[in-house]
Amino acid sequence: MSQAQEPAQIGIYGLGTMGSALALNLAEQGIRVAITNRDSDWIAPFLDRAGALAGQMVPADTLAEFVAALASPRIVLFMIPSGAPMDAMLAEIVPLLAPGDIVIDAGNADFNDTRRRTRELAPTGLHFTGMGVSGGEAGARHGPSIMVGGSKSAWTALEPILTRIAARYEGTPCVARVGPDGAGHFVKTVHNGIEYADMQMIAEIYGLLRDGAGWEAPRIGALFADWDRGPLHGFLTEVTAKTLVARDPATGRPLVDAICDRAGQKGTGRWTVIEALKLGQAAGVIGAAVDARVWSAQAGLRQCAEERLSPGAGSFDPLPAGALEQALIAGRLVTLVQGFEELAAASGEFSWELDLAGIARIWRAGCIIRSDLLHPLIGALGQAGPLPLAHPLPALLAANVAPLRRVVAGAVGAGLPVPALAAALGWYDSIRRARGSANLIQAQRDFFGAHGFARIDSPGSHHGDWGER
Amino acid sequence: MSQAQEPAQIGIYGLGTMGSALALNLAEQGIRVAITNRDSDWIAPFLDRAGALAGQMVPADTLAEFVAALASPRIVLFMIPSGAPMDAMLAEIVPLLAPGDIVIDAGNADFNDTRRRTRELAPTGLHFTGMGVSGGEAGARHGPSIMVGGSKSAWTALEPILTRIAARYEGTPCVARVGPDGAGHFVKTVHNGIEYADMQMIAEIYGLLRDGAGWEAPRIGALFADWDRGPLHGFLTEVTAKTLVARDPATGRPLVDAICDRAGQKGTGRWTVIEALKLGQAAGVIGAAVDARVWSAQAGLRQCAEERLSPGAGSFDPLPAGALEQALIAGRLVTLVQGFEELAAASGEFSWELDLAGIARIWRAGCIIRSDLLHPLIGALGQAGPLPLAHPLPALLAANVAPLRRVVAGAVGAGLPVPALAAALGWYDSIRRARGSANLIQAQRDFFGAHGFARIDSPGSHHGDWGER
Repeated sequence: MSQAQEPAQIGIYGLGTMGSALALNLAEQGIRVAITNRDSDWIAPFLDRAGALAGQMVPADTLAEFVAALASPRIVLFMIPSGAPMDAMLAEIVPLLAPGDIVIDAGNADFNDTRRRTRELAPTGLHFTGMGVSGGEAGARHGPSIMVGGSKSAWTALEPILTRIAARYEGTPCVARVGPDGAGHFVKTVHNGIEYADMQMIAEIYGLLRDGAGWEAPRIGALFADWDRGPLHGFLTEVTAKTLVARDPATGRPLVDAICDRAGQKGTGRWTVIEALKLGQAAGVIGAAVDARVWSAQAGLRQCAEERLSPGAGSFDPLPAGALEQALIAGRLVTLVQGFEELAAASGEFSWELDLAGIARIWRAGCIIRSDLLHPLIGALGQAGPLPLAHPLPALLAANVAPLRRVVAGAVGAGLPVPALAAALGWYDSIRRARGSANLIQAQRDFFGAHGFARIDSPGSHHGDWGER
Repeated sequence: MSQAQEPAQIGIYGLGTMGSALALNLAEQGIRVAITNRDSDWIAPFLDRAGALAGQMVPADTLAEFVAALASPRIVLFMIPSGAPMDAMLAEIVPLLAPGDIVIDAGNADFNDTRRRTRELAPTGLHFTGMGVSGGEAGARHGPSIMVGGSKSAWTALEPILTRIAARYEGTPCVARVGPDGAGHFVKTVHNGIEYADMQMIAEIYGLLRDGAGWEAPRIGALFADWDRGPLHGFLTEVTAKTLVARDPATGRPLVDAICDRAGQKGTGRWTVIEALKLGQAAGVIGAAVDARVWSAQAGLRQCAEERLSPGAGSFDPLPAGALEQALIAGRLVTLVQGFEELAAASGEFSWELDLAGIARIWRAGCIIRSDLLHPLIGALGQAGPLPLAHPLPALLAANVAPLRRVVAGAVGAGLPVPALAAALGWYDSIRRARGSANLIQAQRDFFGAHGFARIDSPGSHHGDWGER
């Protein structure tokens, strides 16, 4: 690279699926971008694929060249595997940077790591920034939803760039600084947890229709395409419709029928559940979705179990398809409520002052969970009081829970698995009961552990006289 | 304390419910025990309560006196709150001890802390031992189940003492060194997770009968007393029967009706779920039980929600009570399978070589989850292959899942919460299906994230041609 070359406004390290797409997006928006990769052999083929956009790119074979290519204060964006590789990269690049430079981790990092790295890098004067990028490859290429966690001064430098590459919802860029340190990665983690749950509930309904009612994939796809024109309009509904109608070129049969039923996972789903538990929250639908991926991976067990465990009780009456649609609406609403309650709890715990409605707004375009169901959430998040009871959620839940109930009862009777849909209903039926059954649990805990209990009719802690033990 | 006094074989630090009970148990078994407490004012009243057993006790007002009272190598057992208090105590006592001495943390510690403390104390030559003690107050007093994690040489010193105070099952002491470092606390954590799930499923059935069928507490208690004479025979069944028939002396009404329905939790339940997730396992029934405790604590929300969310669909037909009994059998079997699968995964991850059947054996007496349902587990754990398919579990599940299905479907239809029972069924219906529905999830992940997928008909990783995106 010649010294005379115009400096780049931002550098992308990591030319995998997401990093490449982001670099192309930046270049297309007229932003000069330095690029490099651990294995520099990837650079030339990438520039070939970039075509005319390569003119906005400054390739660098080494980290030193990469850093030298950047205007000051430098903005370095890493899109590399999370965990140890990120720590290793930081150790390499920090000595090459100067106070005021901005280092972005744009991968799916554990927000605890992001908080640690923010602390560790504070003495260097660098602005470490954890940034969640959602939208998959196409989102990164043409407009992702971006959740930024970092200092306000880093945001001042990043905002002009990120607002140009982000998705837009009715003209408004879907990017925000959601809070300091790990806030961006935490919000992205919960986003992904919600994504897990949405995908699992869709898969459950697909399974009901396939295994319980004998529907072929394209017929199910057509149903989702229909739903995509109603209240379930959203990216995952559309993706479901498209994947279910796609044909396998080799056989002409539905492609989805040729795909193995073992789902992968990378960590964000389980992190969402773990952090909910640590915060004293219940993210049950997401938990059920993570569990379902675990069981999906146990293919050997499932093969043997099908022969050796008892069969289901019968077939599934698909009901009017509208009931399934409403069941999915109810399940997704519950998931969103659980996700935002977790965000609210984290905001309090870490003093992030998250703008929850603002987060829902930047999820309306670009990201995987973008859907019309975010609109009622935005309305509800703008109100005081418990989220599940904020207008318009009670009425929406009331309208859609009865079909959810019918679907879950039918699936349970037929022996078809609906763990996530059942978990959504479990939350609903648990939280709408003023007098629960945990009084028995408290009695038991006092019986054997002398834990004491509260009474409904007098203050303080009490012990029971339980007689002979 | 005079220098001439006979030295104590073990010292107990912490005279709360569990520590007091253990000290009395040791003394009753003729073991000389030094006792002390952070607040030494507790010591004299405790000795008064100890009566004749006080003769076996060496009270110590200070840590130095406490350590001086012990025979060498010293055995110091802490029964204090877990977490920071334990680290603070270690910092105080370690300088007073000598290589070869044994320090036991007998509280409900996070096994990660136990592993860290084992590492940190290794250079001192002390044997740090994490010990799970189950059985509540009565168990600690008259015979708990004890799960020891630590060095083999510590076990050599501890075994003669612990076998004397442990519960006995048909003459065999319910105590074992289950493995090194954090193994004992991990096993205790999973024990407690199973306890959470068992208690939640019992509470769900109690709720079904109370709210769905209008049964009064004593009638439900009589049912559990009946069940305690059958396959559900076990401590929690017995406790349920006793707590449900107990009367409130103030009113003559069932005491359980006067107890608040907010269940407390101290951490082990959620740790079980968190560690399962970290290990790539699914402990869904325990997760549902932890979630249910979270919701139970949200009493204000539930009060408002009862008025503002839609009512349930109707009443619950209690079915033949035998169906409820069988549903609980199925749910508890699934919980045990999930718990032991988590133990197996941890054993592999941490190279503990856990004897799973041996762990089930020491749970047969003394501990909270002791129950006749452990017997088929012991049989199954002794066999090769996947646990859910090991004799006699498939036949037992087959016999009891159909009633579980009827109970869950009935509860779901009636709008009564059964999150843990439903989670048990979700596992069963998921793992017994050779062809699951996660193929759709893999299709979606490839569609938007280019993750690739495996095909059922050819090796390697594939991508779909999904058409326009």
